[in-house]
Amino acid sequence: MTTQAVRHDAMRARNLAVVLGEVRRSGPVTRAALAEITGLTKTTVSKMVGDLLEAGMVAESAAPRDGERGRPGTAVSLSGDRVAALGLEITAGHLSACVADLTLAVRLRCAQAVDNRSRPPVETMAHLQELAHRAVDEARTAGLSVVGSTLAVPGPVDGGLLHTAPNLGWRGVRAGDLLDFPVTVENEANLAALGELWFGGGPDDFLHVSGETGIGAGLVVGGELFRGAHGLAGELGHVVVFPDGPDCRCGGRGCLERYAGQEALLRASGAAGVPELTERLRAGEADALRACERAGWALGVALTSAVNLMDPGTVVLGGIFAPLFEWIAGPVREAMSTRLAGMRRSVPELAVSRLGGDAATLGGAGRVIHRVIADPAPHLPTARPLTL
Amino acid sequence: MTTQAVRHDAMRARNLAVVLGEVRRSGPVTRAALAEITGLTKTTVSKMVGDLLEAGMVAESAAPRDGERGRPGTAVSLSGDRVAALGLEITAGHLSACVADLTLAVRLRCAQAVDNRSRPPVETMAHLQELAHRAVDEARTAGLSVVGSTLAVPGPVDGGLLHTAPNLGWRGVRAGDLLDFPVTVENEANLAALGELWFGGGPDDFLHVSGETGIGAGLVVGGELFRGAHGLAGELGHVVVFPDGPDCRCGGRGCLERYAGQEALLRASGAAGVPELTERLRAGEADALRACERAGWALGVALTSAVNLMDPGTVVLGGIFAPLFEWIAGPVREAMSTRLAGMRRSVPELAVSRLGGDAATLGGAGRVIHRVIADPAPHLPTARPLTL
Repeated sequence: MTTQAVRHDAMRARNLAVVLGEVRRSGPVTRAALAEITGLTKTTVSKMVGDLLEAGMVAESAAPRDGERGRPGTAVSLSGDRVAALGLEITAGHLSACVADLTLAVRLRCAQAVDNRSRPPVETMAHLQELAHRAVDEARTAGLSVVGSTLAVPGPVDGGLLHTAPNLGWRGVRAGDLLDFPVTVENEANLAALGELWFGGGPDDFLHVSGETGIGAGLVVGGELFRGAHGLAGELGHVVVFPDGPDCRCGGRGCLERYAGQEALLRASGAAGVPELTERLRAGEADALRACERAGWALGVALTSAVNLMDPGTVVLGGIFAPLFEWIAGPVREAMSTRLAGMRRSVPELAVSRLGGDAATLGGAGRVIHRVIADPAPHLPTARPLTL
Repeated sequence: MTTQAVRHDAMRARNLAVVLGEVRRSGPVTRAALAEITGLTKTTVSKMVGDLLEAGMVAESAAPRDGERGRPGTAVSLSGDRVAALGLEITAGHLSACVADLTLAVRLRCAQAVDNRSRPPVETMAHLQELAHRAVDEARTAGLSVVGSTLAVPGPVDGGLLHTAPNLGWRGVRAGDLLDFPVTVENEANLAALGELWFGGGPDDFLHVSGETGIGAGLVVGGELFRGAHGLAGELGHVVVFPDGPDCRCGGRGCLERYAGQEALLRASGAAGVPELTERLRAGEADALRACERAGWALGVALTSAVNLMDPGTVVLGGIFAPLFEWIAGPVREAMSTRLAGMRRSVPELAVSRLGGDAATLGGAGRVIHRVIADPAPHLPTARPLTL
């Protein structure tokens, strides 16, 4: 390609992103208003809107009359009818998938309870692939084109490599290479925080705690995920609660996970699963209440260290802590406020996630959608579906 | 002022910042090269350079010949001869001041050992004011004009209010209001991290630990200080080491400060001060070695939690941990690597700060200089000195 053609393509890509971003922010919006807001010419705006219409990323509707004497025109909005994204998650006990469209409406969710600790990565990934294909097929029958996917995994990911997932028994697995379609692999706690940001309807500054077998956290400051130097930030489950405590699967000792992880909670309460635990809590059983109190206290101690170090706006409890919130929030709050109140004007508020265990899967789909909106050009003239 | 005049002023301010920023990055540089790099016209560049020369922010020197046939021209560099900044710090046992010029050369340092815990804030601030006046006077005799100052304090600062400094016994003090010149008050750990970034010659990704009576930390990611939602991030000293440990001045229990703060270290070792402690360590005294080992272990446990949550590039030990590095680094490293190695490809390296206890004072002066370079206009036509 000539230099001029490259420049022209880069300019077009930039203009498409500017127009689509503005439609998302202010739609429904007329072409004339888009030109005025973006500073692009009306001709450029019309061309970009035409391309986005063709790709099914925007749709037209009747615009409200522009004052009394105005003619009724057409306005442009983001369209959820064509472009969609796939979010996937592997936990120790579940596989799940969801499809969200360009407007971030959730179009499809499915989850299967399955023990992923007892089988090798290839088997789990083959099972996940089946689930993914089914989700994409179902989306296709609804007229949707899935253009990308993200996979949430329970461990630190660095350059596509899942370094270790102690709760799956995995080490050094390139999970993305075991699927027959392109996928971005990302830590579940990071994606859960993004899910909370985009689908949870909460504030822009929070620490999202995603309790499952492991416990992860994702910090959002000013609407941006804090990732640290290598994208490994937020390993709340391995914050030290008792330095001489019991050995942890991570190689350390006395980590939070050993006191407030799903296994520790169930063992202490004698329940077989979280639904049974919540039933017992509702019935006021002493063992269950004690288990929650102990876990909440440990979570409060670890969150004290997290608040001292990371200074989050609020703390959102998700994953298994969402259904247990009613019983666990009190002890968490107490441990935090007695330890933190002396050092700061106010102790961060504790909130419950509305998404619970779905946050990471949703965050994965949302991440794809956000990238498409930030740079729609590669998906034009028509959005290319994942080849799977 | 008319709208047009406001716009003209804003444009001039932006151009001044662009030119000064470029001189800092690429100086010595000719006016022609500046025009080419910045995209401004030669006339604009010459006008901006003229103004910056007059304000003493840049200086001229002979430029290297531009090829064989070129005439010798003049190049422009940042000048350290006129504009300077004042950094101040209060700790439990010291008052200190430094002056740095526009090139970030340190022109003056002074520190006084004094017990600030035994007297009210007004007395300490009056003493600090005396020190500040002396430093500014000395700078003036060297031809420098001090244009701004920053004060480092040992506690969380929110909107100019020092919420609490348990190691000074201060609560809710607006320290800046007790001085007769304008000053920005900021947490010492944040400023120490910035000092390390600007004066330490290290990498762009690190957690700086500033051990004094209290222990603070400042995280720098990609050359930017991480501040959290309210600027209160990095309270490493109150990370929980033993949840049932001894009461801490912060209101919590078993905080790192109780195991590795200066007081704890000196009490355990029986030394009267850090210099005596290092002497005893050099002599191989068992009590001193044991005290350092214990403090290093606790610091390693707290840093394990910090690395899990914040994922720093490297960990830089400053403050009193700098002179103790030889003895404390081993136990810190051991505690971190046994607990962290299982979860990540590599455990962050441990480095010693070259600045030691001066980091926060230098960071305070550096902060003023960085703001002047980012927006020089308010300091023109001639840099206005602090009125004091």
